[in-house]
Amino acid sequence: MIKVGIIGGTGYTGVELLRLLHTHPKVQVAAISSRSEAGQRVDEMFPSLAGQSDLVFSLPDDAILDTCDVIFFATPHGVAMENAGAFIEKGIKVIDLGADFRLNDKDEYQKWYGLEHTQETLLAQAVYGLSEINREQIKNANLIANPGCYPTAIQLALKPLIAHKLIDLSAIVADCKSGVSGAGRGANQATLLCEVSESFKAYGVGGHRHYPEIKQALGLLSGENIGLTFVPHLVPMIRGMEVTLYVDLLDADVDVQSVFEQCYKNEHFVTVLGVGKVPETRNVKASNFCQIGVQKAPDGNKLVVMSVIDNLVKGASGQAIQNMNILFGMDEDLGLEQIGLLP
Amino acid sequence: MIKVGIIGGTGYTGVELLRLLHTHPKVQVAAISSRSEAGQRVDEMFPSLAGQSDLVFSLPDDAILDTCDVIFFATPHGVAMENAGAFIEKGIKVIDLGADFRLNDKDEYQKWYGLEHTQETLLAQAVYGLSEINREQIKNANLIANPGCYPTAIQLALKPLIAHKLIDLSAIVADCKSGVSGAGRGANQATLLCEVSESFKAYGVGGHRHYPEIKQALGLLSGENIGLTFVPHLVPMIRGMEVTLYVDLLDADVDVQSVFEQCYKNEHFVTVLGVGKVPETRNVKASNFCQIGVQKAPDGNKLVVMSVIDNLVKGASGQAIQNMNILFGMDEDLGLEQIGLLP
Amino acid sequence: MIKVGIIGGTGYTGVELLRLLHTHPKVQVAAISSRSEAGQRVDEMFPSLAGQSDLVFSLPDDAILDTCDVIFFATPHGVAMENAGAFIEKGIKVIDLGADFRLNDKDEYQKWYGLEHTQETLLAQAVYGLSEINREQIKNANLIANPGCYPTAIQLALKPLIAHKLIDLSAIVADCKSGVSGAGRGANQATLLCEVSESFKAYGVGGHRHYPEIKQALGLLSGENIGLTFVPHLVPMIRGMEVTLYVDLLDADVDVQSVFEQCYKNEHFVTVLGVGKVPETRNVKASNFCQIGVQKAPDGNKLVVMSVIDNLVKGASGQAIQNMNILFGMDEDLGLEQIGLLP
Amino acid sequence: MIKVGIIGGTGYTGVELLRLLHTHPKVQVAAISSRSEAGQRVDEMFPSLAGQSDLVFSLPDDAILDTCDVIFFATPHGVAMENAGAFIEKGIKVIDLGADFRLNDKDEYQKWYGLEHTQETLLAQAVYGLSEINREQIKNANLIANPGCYPTAIQLALKPLIAHKLIDLSAIVADCKSGVSGAGRGANQATLLCEVSESFKAYGVGGHRHYPEIKQALGLLSGENIGLTFVPHLVPMIRGMEVTLYVDLLDADVDVQSVFEQCYKNEHFVTVLGVGKVPETRNVKASNFCQIGVQKAPDGNKLVVMSVIDNLVKGASGQAIQNMNILFGMDEDLGLEQIGLLP
Repeated sequence: MIKVGIIGGTGYTGVELLRLLHTHPKVQVAAISSRSEAGQRVDEMFPSLAGQSDLVFSLPDDAILDTCDVIFFATPHGVAMENAGAFIEKGIKVIDLGADFRLNDKDEYQKWYGLEHTQETLLAQAVYGLSEINREQIKNANLIANPGCYPTAIQLALKPLIAHKLIDLSAIVADCKSGVSGAGRGANQATLLCEVSESFKAYGVGGHRHYPEIKQALGLLSGENIGLTFVPHLVPMIRGMEVTLYVDLLDADVDVQSVFEQCYKNEHFVTVLGVGKVPETRNVKASNFCQIGVQKAPDGNKLVVMSVIDNLVKGASGQAIQNMNILFGMDEDLGLEQIGLLP
Repeated sequence: MIKVGIIGGTGYTGVELLRLLHTHPKVQVAAISSRSEAGQRVDEMFPSLAGQSDLVFSLPDDAILDTCDVIFFATPHGVAMENAGAFIEKGIKVIDLGADFRLNDKDEYQKWYGLEHTQETLLAQAVYGLSEINREQIKNANLIANPGCYPTAIQLALKPLIAHKLIDLSAIVADCKSGVSGAGRGANQATLLCEVSESFKAYGVGGHRHYPEIKQALGLLSGENIGLTFVPHLVPMIRGMEVTLYVDLLDADVDVQSVFEQCYKNEHFVTVLGVGKVPETRNVKASNFCQIGVQKAPDGNKLVVMSVIDNLVKGASGQAIQNMNILFGMDEDLGLEQIGLLP
Repeated sequence: MIKVGIIGGTGYTGVELLRLLHTHPKVQVAAISSRSEAGQRVDEMFPSLAGQSDLVFSLPDDAILDTCDVIFFATPHGVAMENAGAFIEKGIKVIDLGADFRLNDKDEYQKWYGLEHTQETLLAQAVYGLSEINREQIKNANLIANPGCYPTAIQLALKPLIAHKLIDLSAIVADCKSGVSGAGRGANQATLLCEVSESFKAYGVGGHRHYPEIKQALGLLSGENIGLTFVPHLVPMIRGMEVTLYVDLLDADVDVQSVFEQCYKNEHFVTVLGVGKVPETRNVKASNFCQIGVQKAPDGNKLVVMSVIDNLVKGASGQAIQNMNILFGMDEDLGLEQIGLLP
Repeated sequence: MIKVGIIGGTGYTGVELLRLLHTHPKVQVAAISSRSEAGQRVDEMFPSLAGQSDLVFSLPDDAILDTCDVIFFATPHGVAMENAGAFIEKGIKVIDLGADFRLNDKDEYQKWYGLEHTQETLLAQAVYGLSEINREQIKNANLIANPGCYPTAIQLALKPLIAHKLIDLSAIVADCKSGVSGAGRGANQATLLCEVSESFKAYGVGGHRHYPEIKQALGLLSGENIGLTFVPHLVPMIRGMEVTLYVDLLDADVDVQSVFEQCYKNEHFVTVLGVGKVPETRNVKASNFCQIGVQKAPDGNKLVVMSVIDNLVKGASGQAIQNMNILFGMDEDLGLEQIGLLP
């Protein structure tokens, strides 16, 4: 059994790790820490575990964490940056669900996260954990930067087009929609049910932290500079993310459907839907799957690519577990076999 | 008092007309018809009216309709086409909330609605009832084609830009989102709560009936051909519509915010939000207002315009009443004074 | 025009007063105060008012409040207790939407609200503002204690039965359900969309502050001691309240339907539904109506009474305006003509 | 591997069987039938299975069903009644998720379901499959009548009290609340999102088909006649069921909490929450667990018992699989290890 430690387990990605790992046959959650909740039973905070777990929140510096094989950081930015190194030195693998090791350029990190990046050496060795893109590097990583949710959905949607150089990279439009759980579990007037239910809006139009991550990732995929317009929106639902991408095809005659199907035919977690099918977030709810649909627009050479994931699974905790499976040489879908919760 | 008749009153636009007209100080609903429900009390079907109305559904050919000053058609397409003429001949004004008189070209109508247009003469005299654009023609109309919801939100969002020739008209992207009430009140597996709640998806990607209406309307506004990519999405909420438009500015230095504010400074129902503000559908819920926000994107010369309406009010029954007010020389906001229902 | 002041206008009952008063033909909102938001435009906080109001939050001690005819307190408990007296001395009417003057017994107040009641004289002159029960006293009141939402729905549901001494008062069961807006607008993890959406639970089982208010009110109605089991539940929706009451009929043969219809035949805002009809909260959404249905259970002599209101309207701001209308001799439904928002 | 056949797989209990069995390690779904959809790929109807299943709907009389070890009927009432016998004669176990074999008295069946019961012999041998109550009989059953959702939640909530004869059985009040999925997947105006979202109501007050099932089951548990008032309500959410039971304790001093904890200490799927804790449906969402909380009311000797399940899992497909596990001597939680989906 692989011993797992979770640092910062009181948010939604923390409890989602617990939920998914609960049915993982080769993993034992040895410890979960929370500075504020240390000493409290985990099932007091998350009664979905009542009767199923005797875990108690420990302090983040509890020695039990040093006995783990892998540590998941499910913490606000800055925490993993300061604390990942100590685990790695002890030979413990680290998977950071936060943003501390996603941006290669420490200045970009400081610009977007308002914090100086103090761990350049670690940053240099971190592997960006988009499983379907960086699988080989992930196998040998010591430190994995688990991608953001929007970047995951967008990269999977564009990878086949970029790999085959089929689109104009200077004017990509990404109109993105996320459920509210992406905003976290902290007390916040802006995400009260009465403030966001029965409503729809864009947000972060002036600048969202996933913007530089997406540009960097697409730039690395293509080897070119990317022109990106990225507008996230908030959907009145708990889970789920849909991205609708508008790109210009360089060659209007290419069989885009086949390109997508070919690209993902061996990927367990990415499903290309049939011609004319449109992905719905509910079909991947509570699962690690990504479903993609492509459609040519009637005017001009616009292509519309739509991709859906569960922001808490493939967009966070599920992909983190997928990366752990890769890291430890296990079947990639262990603990992640569940299909979407429908209805 | 103006005597109003409603034909086809069992759907959502019908009951919304009843709700709004209930507080209109100069209107009396004289009759509401439904072939299937004739004889039933209206408050049996819509208990929000219990104790407040003694209306009974009449047959569509009931003579009482001939005593009305204005008839609203809230019917499936085809019905107004066949029946509007008889009222107009009797000097009764007709406002069609459906699509029968929106498309100027009868072939386009047949192509998108699968029905031959049999009333070319009527079609030629119909006035497209987007109040803020065609106010003068509406004043003297006999037959008003009330616009679709998406076309309303999009035209109001683009009018200032088109009027000042500020954008490239060949590649407009309209990423649109609607609440479920737009799909109507008929029994339909696809819009069951369990099928659409807690989910998000695009629909009609291959072709939506509002597409030709939008192209025609923007073409008339600009005098040019329009290149349009239009992708509607379904939001898990009852009411509300948001459109996010991506357009290329011809001159990146223009003060777009001022252009919008100037354009709408005298319009009661269109509000341009301050710099950096983003419209939310809830702020116009159950009201006739449209709120608009504009934002330049960081890359290239993309401009993002966001516009929200309540699809059942400004997108249907409210605009129909606004048009009636214009038609009868009343204050344009009579019966439409309500602000958004928040929360 | 009656000049209205609102103290504590940043919560849901505050903005609901603004919404309803916006269409009240004989009222002008002269001032709205908020200690924390003083100086901010009201439409910055509540964009539903954008373009429709130039109100700016004032300080609670702004002199403009002294020029008002009536002050609404929409504040946490304790505030009206300390500040109502000064207005009343100046001849200004006060309507408290909070709980400070609802409980006649100052010890009960201290027990349930954890605060000593310092204003016994005011408390003695306060009139409990359930319009349909205390209309005559309201007409001459200087200080009105606007009822809680659960107490309003329950009293209206039981008034006919108690007035005719038809039920056993020693074992009333009130199973109550409320939308989330009843929990207020403060930042609170417990009412995040992700915590309460797609879920249902009881709360306050060990003791809810409306419990003593209900017992007192039913006791005053009946002149007897009341045995009450009161269990509130949280419904995943914004607005609306349903109470299902289980009572034992003393005489199984009484025509309960007629008793209810007779009792409310002259009440504008209370509608008794027909035999076998069940009230739905949506039918009164955003309106000041209460709808009631009654049904005998198959076993024993149990009667089931169901009553629905919008907790923010008849359960708070709407009833406050109804009371203001009574107080100033206006038509009771002025500004409250809107029917339920359906769908 | 146990070979499973599902008859009538196009509804919510059908797809829920598919979801749960997808991760069951000892089961293979050999066939799923639908008369109307025969020949269609299952993942066309349920895209949550896209890429994960090649199942195709077969006809209900397809020979492949005869090769199965167990057949689940997920059909409207009447279908299992007519077709179960043929499978049983071939030695195939049958689990009926419908109501055909729940009521022991064929006249009661006819009264509530409007259909003559033609299979008295089968009815006599059917075992009522509430796993925690009838486990021993289930082990040897050939035909299992899987309980209804309300009856399941209510029986689990009352079993400890009835077993210890602690309550008055003549006046039980069951105020019950269900998510909308209980109403099924058929096209139905009454369960459109726009009809039930943002609303709450009672339904079936005059008589619900689970009423005789509950009375029969509690009668068998207690050996006495039951007086029951049962009012179901519809909650605007997809999944989840909460029942709040009001009963009179015969002895006010009994330690009810201990009675419950003792009763369920060895039951994997029933969790008694700590003193003062209240169950929330979300904590068991998508899981087979039942969580129960008990609380004495302040007045009189009323006890409040609250119980939550997922209506589609413990209330239908999950319990059916639990029964299958018992029937085939497997661990009772195989394929049912998932904890609640939170958030």
